[in-house]
Amino acid sequence: MSQLSLMGITGIGEITPGADLAAVIATAMALEENPTLCDGDVVVVTQKVVSKAEGQLVAIDVEDSDAKVALVEREAVRILRRRGELRITETVHGFICANAGVDLSNVDDGVAALLPVDADRSARRIRAGLKQRTGTDVGVLISDTFGRPWRRGVTDVALGAAGIAAVIDLRGTPDANGRVLAATEVCVADELCGAAELVMGKDAGIPVAIIRGVDPSWLRPSSVREEIVRSTAEDLFR
Amino acid sequence: MSQLSLMGITGIGEITPGADLAAVIATAMALEENPTLCDGDVVVVTQKVVSKAEGQLVAIDVEDSDAKVALVEREAVRILRRRGELRITETVHGFICANAGVDLSNVDDGVAALLPVDADRSARRIRAGLKQRTGTDVGVLISDTFGRPWRRGVTDVALGAAGIAAVIDLRGTPDANGRVLAATEVCVADELCGAAELVMGKDAGIPVAIIRGVDPSWLRPSSVREEIVRSTAEDLFR
Repeated sequence: MSQLSLMGITGIGEITPGADLAAVIATAMALEENPTLCDGDVVVVTQKVVSKAEGQLVAIDVEDSDAKVALVEREAVRILRRRGELRITETVHGFICANAGVDLSNVDDGVAALLPVDADRSARRIRAGLKQRTGTDVGVLISDTFGRPWRRGVTDVALGAAGIAAVIDLRGTPDANGRVLAATEVCVADELCGAAELVMGKDAGIPVAIIRGVDPSWLRPSSVREEIVRSTAEDLFR
Repeated sequence: MSQLSLMGITGIGEITPGADLAAVIATAMALEENPTLCDGDVVVVTQKVVSKAEGQLVAIDVEDSDAKVALVEREAVRILRRRGELRITETVHGFICANAGVDLSNVDDGVAALLPVDADRSARRIRAGLKQRTGTDVGVLISDTFGRPWRRGVTDVALGAAGIAAVIDLRGTPDANGRVLAATEVCVADELCGAAELVMGKDAGIPVAIIRGVDPSWLRPSSVREEIVRSTAEDLFR
């Protein structure tokens, strides 16, 4: 039986600029209520705590709409759509998301969290730190909550990855009828981040989840920016 | 600890038109290698087996590109983009997807699978059948594999739902700092379908997965078309 388990990690506490996230996670994982970290686990960490730890915070007057929009437009390299205060933006990293990823929830009043400068690097650092502190080889994903066109509701997707495939390529793999699949690249990183969201919840203050049981062949060097971000040239909706 | 488990169900076998999917799933779930179905489980079923069971199949010459494109355009109510043989389409159900959901993989040679006529109804039927045969109250999701703009790789999303929320509304819920979240509607149905894909795999011939441990408050009447499909009026990318 193909099986996967997802566990929200408790006891992470409040993250402040300069925090060593690998140390924080390793300490929380040693608590009795949490599982022991194992080789092959995938650790999903929300962007919010990564941005806080990396000091990607700016002061903002949340009552000042103009200032909020100005901050968003400064963080964007391109505005795709405008509606009221909402901007659908392309960020410097190549992500298309609402309001350039600028986030006012779950941060202190008067502070906005910006996206990590390089979330693949953030993931690699956490992975290396967990290896050093716990001796385990794990995959690490940095997740964020994005909307999408055509479908209501947000889902969590991957901003950064280390040691776990972002996209797996099934091209050349036979289907169940023995025919070679024409073109199936599956974005497992986004599916893993969405799955992790289900045990984290927006309001519960659980910023880390463990996924156990992923296909060992997915555990390899990776990058969200190289594997997932679609270039303008190959994109039909920019 | 918030925890969720995902299990791919084996022993489903080949599905033919007229098959009673609830009966097939109930029989497979009684096999020793599979878990016993429990109240509150979410059963994710791929569109492919639903379309086969419902006879949503048409003859097609897979070598004939023109015939394939003509079939896709017949199934679409609107073409958003064209590139080579690829059409990004709006279907009669309101889904935006590649090639109107017409699918040539994992079906017999010379046959294409169309989308179910009403996947919410398909989900309700399977849910009612499982209740009748096993006595359990479960949620049912019908999943399909969609691409998306801006990000490479496909992910599984929900086409139909019964007994499990499609979108949960966290508006009015306080965040971890006690502030009321402005607008967060989470598409848990898509996250659940993406998670289920991780234990099914495109090539493994596992068309059903069980998700155990979802928040009991999510188990309620639901509809993908009513909750997830965004109307043209509120969509910024049509």
